[in-house]
Amino acid sequence: MKSFNSADLQNMEQRFRSTLINSISGFKSLQMVGTINQRAITNIALFNSIFHVGSHPPFIGMVVRPEGDQHETLKNILELGVYTLNNVNEDNYIAAHQTSARYLTGESEFTECGFTEEYVDDFKAPFVKESNIKLGLELVETIPFPKNGTTIIIGEVKHIILDEQFICADGYVDLAEAKSVTVAGLDAYHQTQLLGRLAYAKRGKQPEFLNVNEKEK
Amino acid sequence: MKSFNSADLQNMEQRFRSTLINSISGFKSLQMVGTINQRAITNIALFNSIFHVGSHPPFIGMVVRPEGDQHETLKNILELGVYTLNNVNEDNYIAAHQTSARYLTGESEFTECGFTEEYVDDFKAPFVKESNIKLGLELVETIPFPKNGTTIIIGEVKHIILDEQFICADGYVDLAEAKSVTVAGLDAYHQTQLLGRLAYAKRGKQPEFLNVNEKEK
Repeated sequence: MKSFNSADLQNMEQRFRSTLINSISGFKSLQMVGTINQRAITNIALFNSIFHVGSHPPFIGMVVRPEGDQHETLKNILELGVYTLNNVNEDNYIAAHQTSARYLTGESEFTECGFTEEYVDDFKAPFVKESNIKLGLELVETIPFPKNGTTIIIGEVKHIILDEQFICADGYVDLAEAKSVTVAGLDAYHQTQLLGRLAYAKRGKQPEFLNVNEKEK
Repeated sequence: MKSFNSADLQNMEQRFRSTLINSISGFKSLQMVGTINQRAITNIALFNSIFHVGSHPPFIGMVVRPEGDQHETLKNILELGVYTLNNVNEDNYIAAHQTSARYLTGESEFTECGFTEEYVDDFKAPFVKESNIKLGLELVETIPFPKNGTTIIIGEVKHIILDEQFICADGYVDLAEAKSVTVAGLDAYHQTQLLGRLAYAKRGKQPEFLNVNEKEK
């Protein structure tokens, strides 16, 4: 086994450390965040720090870096109070990666990267038509983390749009069937395959596999 | 396409909503969190809300639910200020799932679920021997989120232990080779397969695949 301590991390070449730390915490949720500003200029930014906060109310969190396109996203979210999360799947991950390039002010990643804006009801933020699982969120909390200049934001899910065939009878969304990808580090995109669903764990009882692949009608 | 709005979510059967919201935000990082209290009773709890916060200093965040085993973990972390993250892989995911059962006070998930405690230098929190990528963290920040009683904690990575063969030349940790699994929702464990690593995105340039599978010597 190889080990690194604080001093090793401190002395590491910067890009090596960044790649190591970004990948070592495990596979990550990956979403294209869609926003719009007061002047109606839209934006897509790629986020891999999405996390579940609660299901009732339905809260989702994410970490926003202080610079670049993610900062633009934060500005837009603070302006209008809404944003969308759009899944990255096997069909769109290369174009989704391209949204992380630095575009000029006034250029939208929608047109520059070949994505299509989609609007639902009177919800102001743009969804990504090419995604097959999409969420519309309202900003609930902004938590600055001064130790590295990032901001944690938490939103409440107000809209869900997805292909009906991905919803199982018990509410489970079959992400593998939707071909959603997961990312390791900043650039390693992975497809997935189900090993199994396990029943609620009980003390003194062996874990059992669930058989709930049946989709909702 | 199927859609749900706030009212639909509000009126949904509780378990259906919980399963839907837990799975819809994408594949999640999964870690066994190892802790110990002042009386030297150890604990493993399964967390699927791990997120990257920064690489320099190396910060990792997670969300702790207010009840059950996760609450026990939080108490231990606040007592000693340290904890470990241990990857869930294809060889240990069934036992890892079992750690989420409710054990009695004084019972350790290490012995109850067949895991082995491992200690490194003078770091107080127990690592899980059966994991092949492990991190030792020091608590840096505790952020209560009163809207649903959860707590976000952020720790700094102080120790990294992993099989050397998983580290690529540029620092990337090959999670698929380590057989780390990812989870959708609360119970759907997935293995992964690399689609590709993409080079840093540049405006006006097509994304290129990286060829960096070479491991560090």
